[in-house]
Amino acid sequence: MGNYRIAVIPGDGIGPEIVGQTLRVLDQIADTYGHHFEYKELLAGGCAIDATGEPLPEETVAECRKSDAVLLGAVGGAKWDHLPGEKRPEMALLGLRGQLGLYANLRPAYLYKQLQAACPLKPEIIGESIDLLVVRELTGGIYFGPRGRRATAERGEEAFDTEVYSEAEVERIARVAFEIARGRQRRVTNVDKANVLESSRLWRAVVTRVAADYPDVELNHMYVDNAAMQLVRNPKQFDVIVTTNMFGDILSDEASMITGSIGMLPSASLGQGNFGLYEPVHGSAPDLAGQDRANPLATILSAAMMLRYSFGLAQEAEAITSAVEQVLAAGYRTGDIMSPGQTLVGTAQMGQLVCDYI
Amino acid sequence: MGNYRIAVIPGDGIGPEIVGQTLRVLDQIADTYGHHFEYKELLAGGCAIDATGEPLPEETVAECRKSDAVLLGAVGGAKWDHLPGEKRPEMALLGLRGQLGLYANLRPAYLYKQLQAACPLKPEIIGESIDLLVVRELTGGIYFGPRGRRATAERGEEAFDTEVYSEAEVERIARVAFEIARGRQRRVTNVDKANVLESSRLWRAVVTRVAADYPDVELNHMYVDNAAMQLVRNPKQFDVIVTTNMFGDILSDEASMITGSIGMLPSASLGQGNFGLYEPVHGSAPDLAGQDRANPLATILSAAMMLRYSFGLAQEAEAITSAVEQVLAAGYRTGDIMSPGQTLVGTAQMGQLVCDYI
Ligand SMILES: CC(C)[C@H](C(=O)O)[C@@H](O)C(=O)O
Ligand SMILES: CC(C)[C@H](C(=O)O)[C@@H](O)C(=O)O
Repeated sequence: MGNYRIAVIPGDGIGPEIVGQTLRVLDQIADTYGHHFEYKELLAGGCAIDATGEPLPEETVAECRKSDAVLLGAVGGAKWDHLPGEKRPEMALLGLRGQLGLYANLRPAYLYKQLQAACPLKPEIIGESIDLLVVRELTGGIYFGPRGRRATAERGEEAFDTEVYSEAEVERIARVAFEIARGRQRRVTNVDKANVLESSRLWRAVVTRVAADYPDVELNHMYVDNAAMQLVRNPKQFDVIVTTNMFGDILSDEASMITGSIGMLPSASLGQGNFGLYEPVHGSAPDLAGQDRANPLATILSAAMMLRYSFGLAQEAEAITSAVEQVLAAGYRTGDIMSPGQTLVGTAQMGQLVCDYI
Repeated sequence: MGNYRIAVIPGDGIGPEIVGQTLRVLDQIADTYGHHFEYKELLAGGCAIDATGEPLPEETVAECRKSDAVLLGAVGGAKWDHLPGEKRPEMALLGLRGQLGLYANLRPAYLYKQLQAACPLKPEIIGESIDLLVVRELTGGIYFGPRGRRATAERGEEAFDTEVYSEAEVERIARVAFEIARGRQRRVTNVDKANVLESSRLWRAVVTRVAADYPDVELNHMYVDNAAMQLVRNPKQFDVIVTTNMFGDILSDEASMITGSIGMLPSASLGQGNFGLYEPVHGSAPDLAGQDRANPLATILSAAMMLRYSFGLAQEAEAITSAVEQVLAAGYRTGDIMSPGQTLVGTAQMGQLVCDYI
């Protein structure tokens, strides 16, 4: 019986619809298990630009800080693509991560048995399933380092960005990866470019040092170019991948795609303590917005991660994930994961089905 | 009837064997078409470290400068993995690129019809074939920018690397991409992270400006995380991809792997004028070295690129590539591309077969 305050950021495109269905599912959990979830709806992204001129209004950050967790739909869309870099909807994501100190991004890439037909890889490669987790550092590296421009005499204008990592930053993300690996197959692959980058050499040294505290977890190292290949060649070799902000951006998206069902994948962005932001991996898909066609399952599964990681409600989280599996097993599909012989349903009906199975 | 001076760097592992077979093929071309190729064998990589203490002896660079082109096997191996960053065999590659001004790396990802069985992607995705080309900037960006370490008061040691691009650097690589696209399907995809990085915003602006000189070539832009997904989801959408050194490192390796036959893929690294360095995409595979098991075709095809790009011998280049296709069509395979019902051959026999078909 808990009381939890959830900051809810529907965002743009299909965001409001998929978040709407997710709140229904959370209400069902509240009912069934006797909890109380209080929702505070907030603006961020394109809709915030339209309403306030800023992608991330101060009030949004302040209200997130007062909450136990944040649930986010999706932000962005072609409508705001003409805006200069700093004013774009996506800046809301970077701002939330930075200002809320969400340094650990968990990106599971999981292939549901029922959705193997959608996987772009051959059956020999995927075998029974794919189940790996990318732990991406989220508040450091080149996305947050110093950047700028300067004029040169002979080469025209020059622009730079800086990849920076400190021992403290690497240590805390490495600990997250090793702790999580303990609840999985106890294998961590560190991905870097230590044969070229100085920041990667520091990164690798710190990860190796932290590994000494986890003798029960196996650690190996891989260069990022090789990791990009291995994810295609043999994704089953991975359990937990830990890597930098930029490499994690690229590899977690590649890993999502090899499952073939990006509409199913949740994510968590964690900070100190139990606070976290939860959002689907997919984008705002403006072309599907308002048509009851979007797949709400990635957002619903993100809410399950919220229950588990921020509220410590493992049983309730499990109730959601197993309801989703039952809905799939019963043959219900939104358009993005539809295949012959299954039953096509809309966004709202999918939300209702998950509630029914809880 | 030309005279060409070729700097030959066999390198480590399987390097000497695959280069040996490639020189046989070049000799066959010389014989058939009446050219003269003069070879100058040089040290670089692990063998250079063993012989001289340096991965890239000055003499090697000087001799390359005196040559019309460079043919390289592969460098590196576990034997030298304990060495500090700056002393590693791979530093020979960065050194050659930087010192010889090889700013344009051409990495074709091509799926041979005969080798579709080895492709990790489902047949629906690959269709008839995959045929894309990554144009990677090779002497700028974060692999060559300022780097260092500093102590901080609260976060321990800190390390940084700098991604830097100037207008001149971007312009020249963009021109390479657009020129090459004219000989292909006339489509260029620029890959960057302009929604976050300042250097990417400059990059994108310059590529867009250069595109105005190529109205017959279509240009589109893609973020690197999305590109990593699209290569798996639908590689056929790409013709020419142009991108930075680091993104190109990751994406060209991913693109190689989706063809499933990395032992077949050549590369060219071009500078001003006709000078270039040619090498296979795969590594030195020390575990296969000296056993007559390595696949020499990627190196042989790299020599074909040398004939085409550095010597302007398009007909001779074509003679090699079509000989390779005939050898495959006749069912000959090295171990890495072997499949049931084909004829397994060794490194030397594969070289001989290509000569026979020329
Ligand atoms: C929108 C962008 C800034 C963001 C990132 O690269 O971090 C996105 O791609 C993501 O992965 O969440
Ligand atoms: C060895 C390394 C420095 C090199 C690179 O990353 O450039 C390699 O991975 C390559 O792609 O040729």
